[in-house]
Amino acid sequence: MKKLLGPLGGMIIGFVLVFWSIASSGPLSAFINAPSWIITFFGSMAAVIMSFPIDELMKVPKVIKEVMIDPADNRIEIVKLFSEFSKKSRLNGILSIESDIQNLENKTLQRGLQMVIDGKEGEIINEQIELEMDLTEERYQIAPLFLNKWGEFAPAFGMIGTLIGLIVMLGELDDPSLIGSGMATALITTFYGTMLANLVFLPLATNISQLISEKMVTYEIIHNGVIAMQEGQNPRDIEEKLKSYLTPKELEEMETSDPISLENLQKQEV
Amino acid sequence: MKKLLGPLGGMIIGFVLVFWSIASSGPLSAFINAPSWIITFFGSMAAVIMSFPIDELMKVPKVIKEVMIDPADNRIEIVKLFSEFSKKSRLNGILSIESDIQNLENKTLQRGLQMVIDGKEGEIINEQIELEMDLTEERYQIAPLFLNKWGEFAPAFGMIGTLIGLIVMLGELDDPSLIGSGMATALITTFYGTMLANLVFLPLATNISQLISEKMVTYEIIHNGVIAMQEGQNPRDIEEKLKSYLTPKELEEMETSDPISLENLQKQEV
Amino acid sequence: MKKLLGPLGGMIIGFVLVFWSIASSGPLSAFINAPSWIITFFGSMAAVIMSFPIDELMKVPKVIKEVMIDPADNRIEIVKLFSEFSKKSRLNGILSIESDIQNLENKTLQRGLQMVIDGKEGEIINEQIELEMDLTEERYQIAPLFLNKWGEFAPAFGMIGTLIGLIVMLGELDDPSLIGSGMATALITTFYGTMLANLVFLPLATNISQLISEKMVTYEIIHNGVIAMQEGQNPRDIEEKLKSYLTPKELEEMETSDPISLENLQKQEV
Amino acid sequence: MKKLLGPLGGMIIGFVLVFWSIASSGPLSAFINAPSWIITFFGSMAAVIMSFPIDELMKVPKVIKEVMIDPADNRIEIVKLFSEFSKKSRLNGILSIESDIQNLENKTLQRGLQMVIDGKEGEIINEQIELEMDLTEERYQIAPLFLNKWGEFAPAFGMIGTLIGLIVMLGELDDPSLIGSGMATALITTFYGTMLANLVFLPLATNISQLISEKMVTYEIIHNGVIAMQEGQNPRDIEEKLKSYLTPKELEEMETSDPISLENLQKQEV
Amino acid sequence: MKKLLGPLGGMIIGFVLVFWSIASSGPLSAFINAPSWIITFFGSMAAVIMSFPIDELMKVPKVIKEVMIDPADNRIEIVKLFSEFSKKSRLNGILSIESDIQNLENKTLQRGLQMVIDGKEGEIINEQIELEMDLTEERYQIAPLFLNKWGEFAPAFGMIGTLIGLIVMLGELDDPSLIGSGMATALITTFYGTMLANLVFLPLATNISQLISEKMVTYEIIHNGVIAMQEGQNPRDIEEKLKSYLTPKELEEMETSDPISLENLQKQEV
Repeated sequence: MKKLLGPLGGMIIGFVLVFWSIASSGPLSAFINAPSWIITFFGSMAAVIMSFPIDELMKVPKVIKEVMIDPADNRIEIVKLFSEFSKKSRLNGILSIESDIQNLENKTLQRGLQMVIDGKEGEIINEQIELEMDLTEERYQIAPLFLNKWGEFAPAFGMIGTLIGLIVMLGELDDPSLIGSGMATALITTFYGTMLANLVFLPLATNISQLISEKMVTYEIIHNGVIAMQEGQNPRDIEEKLKSYLTPKELEEMETSDPISLENLQKQEV
Repeated sequence: MKKLLGPLGGMIIGFVLVFWSIASSGPLSAFINAPSWIITFFGSMAAVIMSFPIDELMKVPKVIKEVMIDPADNRIEIVKLFSEFSKKSRLNGILSIESDIQNLENKTLQRGLQMVIDGKEGEIINEQIELEMDLTEERYQIAPLFLNKWGEFAPAFGMIGTLIGLIVMLGELDDPSLIGSGMATALITTFYGTMLANLVFLPLATNISQLISEKMVTYEIIHNGVIAMQEGQNPRDIEEKLKSYLTPKELEEMETSDPISLENLQKQEV
Repeated sequence: MKKLLGPLGGMIIGFVLVFWSIASSGPLSAFINAPSWIITFFGSMAAVIMSFPIDELMKVPKVIKEVMIDPADNRIEIVKLFSEFSKKSRLNGILSIESDIQNLENKTLQRGLQMVIDGKEGEIINEQIELEMDLTEERYQIAPLFLNKWGEFAPAFGMIGTLIGLIVMLGELDDPSLIGSGMATALITTFYGTMLANLVFLPLATNISQLISEKMVTYEIIHNGVIAMQEGQNPRDIEEKLKSYLTPKELEEMETSDPISLENLQKQEV
Repeated sequence: MKKLLGPLGGMIIGFVLVFWSIASSGPLSAFINAPSWIITFFGSMAAVIMSFPIDELMKVPKVIKEVMIDPADNRIEIVKLFSEFSKKSRLNGILSIESDIQNLENKTLQRGLQMVIDGKEGEIINEQIELEMDLTEERYQIAPLFLNKWGEFAPAFGMIGTLIGLIVMLGELDDPSLIGSGMATALITTFYGTMLANLVFLPLATNISQLISEKMVTYEIIHNGVIAMQEGQNPRDIEEKLKSYLTPKELEEMETSDPISLENLQKQEV
Repeated sequence: MKKLLGPLGGMIIGFVLVFWSIASSGPLSAFINAPSWIITFFGSMAAVIMSFPIDELMKVPKVIKEVMIDPADNRIEIVKLFSEFSKKSRLNGILSIESDIQNLENKTLQRGLQMVIDGKEGEIINEQIELEMDLTEERYQIAPLFLNKWGEFAPAFGMIGTLIGLIVMLGELDDPSLIGSGMATALITTFYGTMLANLVFLPLATNISQLISEKMVTYEIIHNGVIAMQEGQNPRDIEEKLKSYLTPKELEEMETSDPISLENLQKQEV
């Protein structure tokens, strides 16, 4: 949920500012217009639905959930895990960690270590993890792409709504005194479209892109860790290398936190 | 046909919303104007025709058909096929599958396996499949490119139409009371151009790009499968590897579906 | 000339549509304005001249001629040639084709085969052909770049013309009744600029880019063919490989056409 | 602080010009409007906050400080250091420099040399430094990205403010004589948004991107220097190679400046 | 100076056309407005100054001079030089050319050949030249980047000026008859900004980019020539290979021009 606080907070601040700005200069009612909302929101949604195969669309909520709402962002844990695994493996042989990896939540990590235990060649393990990383990243990309497209279509449909309003108004121009209110109504869809794009879709798309990059660093750690385990590198070297990926803040947090216990690992999910 | 439902549905929803939006605010007749339609639609079509060599244009309907209307999207089948082929080949030798591949619909799959049977070197098979993948992807790209260009030219010709309307109206401005209806007419081409771009061409272009990416994953499976067959890898390893490309949903579907029978394969197309 | 029919046809259709659109709504004379044309067309031309070194500009007509007006697009011939050359070379030794290649129009093909005959190393031949391909593609790129830049500058100078018109009109605004005709005149340059960009320069640029891509496939065939000859590959394998580059239509055409005769080759250009 | 003078000076000149331009044509008071400022500045800030994970946002001031306000841009020093280190190492063995590197400010330089001293393999040192360079560059990129996004959102919220102003004004249009002042107020947010983007955020973003490129050249020097030390290259060759990265002006400065003393290095930070 | 004729000529033609266009439709005085010029030109200059570190800005005139005003574009000379050097080196040994290279103007060429004479390894020479090419290209890039940024900021400050003019005019709207002249003045900054961008900065940026590409081909020739010298390739092969980089026109010119004399080289700069 923590990842959601930033965008949610920003969105609330933004909308409060817009409402305050409207309220301080005129009646809020002038900005509420259901038909304008329908053409802008649902029209752009129709265009977005057209833009993606249905099974791709279905993935969007899952990706958002996985990346933003409920991310298992345990980079520190993963570095600690590799540290423990490599120590135990050096002491008791690689087979000794087999029971420890059964409950790992990250399937790429689990599969990678299983391949090391099974004695697969380094080349094959490397290819398999790279493949899973590529496919994972590709799968994630649908979410920012979807939001970006909606952020492009929303102002376009705002403009379509405004064009409809203008053409109707100009065509019926018997009474020039109505030109003002007609144009005001016509502009509301442009207002909605710009708001949706700049206060909802585009910022969210950027945010999710960033979160995906972060996620991919986690996979990079797993990639490097598994390869280092396969090569039987020194536990201290492995830990040093994987620590390069952590930010100074994470490094600090890592040192102050409790060491991970492989015993607990077998009882609960990471 | 399944791939067509999404974009078709989205387009219908979008147009219904636009019609409803017009109908609820003024006469629909104000938005129907044949000359405006002709300059926007056929004008932008002329520009698109100019933009591509004729034999490239000819390929567009075929690509749309192949990718969107009638895609043989049997990723699950292909993984199963490789599973069966590798088992049979391990049991009875690679020559035993020669008769099974005669009816394969996917020519790259067929040619690739034929090369394995013919005992070509891995390097040569790899190059040939990569070449076919590149040329296939290149051939497909004409469709989204074509639609994107049309989506760019449609608003431009909408603007040309509006400029014509404005220049005529402003030049004849004897009676200021006609300025409204003149401008309304002038704006219709902009409305048409924006609609065509945002509710037809641009969403379709994005959708087809996505479908092409999906198609290329299928080719990637074939690529990997054929190479693995040539290297004589373990049937279980081949299946595991190729399964990485499937989504969780496809994996589920694969497990519940009937196993593929090579006997049937010889009688009918895949 | 065949390559020119599409863009020429499209351009004629587009202009006819625009003329018809104007004629059906007002006097054509309102759209003819020599000074507007001069500032838009020649102004943007001046900016394009500024944008490229003079010797680069000089190359544009030659590239357009080479790629669009008079392309020697004999992909089928080239595949046949390699087929014949490889057969003859296998039968009578590589030296036997030396006399056959003297009249080849494509200099890269000729030089490549000459290097094979001279017994140069594969690595050197490969480098040389890749270098020639790179330099050829780079040389071609000036044409679409030039047209794209003109397509960008034309609307900009249309806007400059309109700004001049507006500033003059607004500054002299003694008689408000003249505002209409003044603005009509001011808008004509925008109209010209948009037309030039969307019905001449931008579509031509896209078309030539496509034709260049096609040309580069021909060079790719030559590249692969020469390398295969140098490696002494099997004539049938060479033909199979090079055929991958042909479209289904070209393949059909190839099968129905007469075989190429190396005897004729020595008498006339290919 | 030196890096800050350019952008700060430019910004001051720009704002003075704008104020002068306003003051010379009308009352400055017409351009001061707190609500307009709030919606434009804080609205776009809200959208930027939405666009980045909070811990990424936190990094921005630190990156700006590190790159622009307080950069340790001692490229000359670093070349000199490598020159001294390589001489001393050749004379007394690589272990002799261990005490000298304890106070190095640049952690990548220190860790790189430590690895050389520890006798790690070239391949591992190379990978580790490349990894640190990649992660450093990635970490820096948040700053220009953040400023660019703000530079995109500022005009968008300027436009939202103007739309609000227009809709309110047009809706209340009882007295046509107020249309002027209403529109003037509505346009102020557009003015603010354009100013913020073009005189603050976008130029700063470009500047920081340039400074990051410069920083990465410093890392490139460190990368090359450490690798050359590990390979035990000739001190003169190392110095020659690293000098290629310096500009002519830096080279001059280097020759006239005092040689670096490793003795002092141990007492103070570089 | 020759490289300057094209852009200078284009700029003069463009400005003459604009002046003629203004003069033929109204008083030139309406387009001359010092404050408008100051805000547009110096305002955008301030933004450009903000966008680059000061020492980067300092490089721009030097790069423009080096690339456009005074380029030593002696591609033909360089090919001839390599031809002579390789002949002499084959005849009298590589050391025999040492005295000939002392006066070479191009420092990369000189340093490259010196390294060959010094008997450095091919790998090291290759790396060093590639490094110098990369750094040279990077150094050149500041010029088009600078001009492009100015070309982006000029219209933005034109718009800022117009917004200031509009807000002042609309706020003081006592006398509606002044609206015309007020708007005319307001639009002048937009006119200036568009002119500066499209008739000065953007075309120059494109031109310099092209000239840089040309320069880099010269470096490519040097790169290839030096490597070929180091490998001791056949003088005729070297000449053949380097000639691939020349255009047909340059090739012709090369054949008709006098051969280069290494004796003269020692007395004067190339």
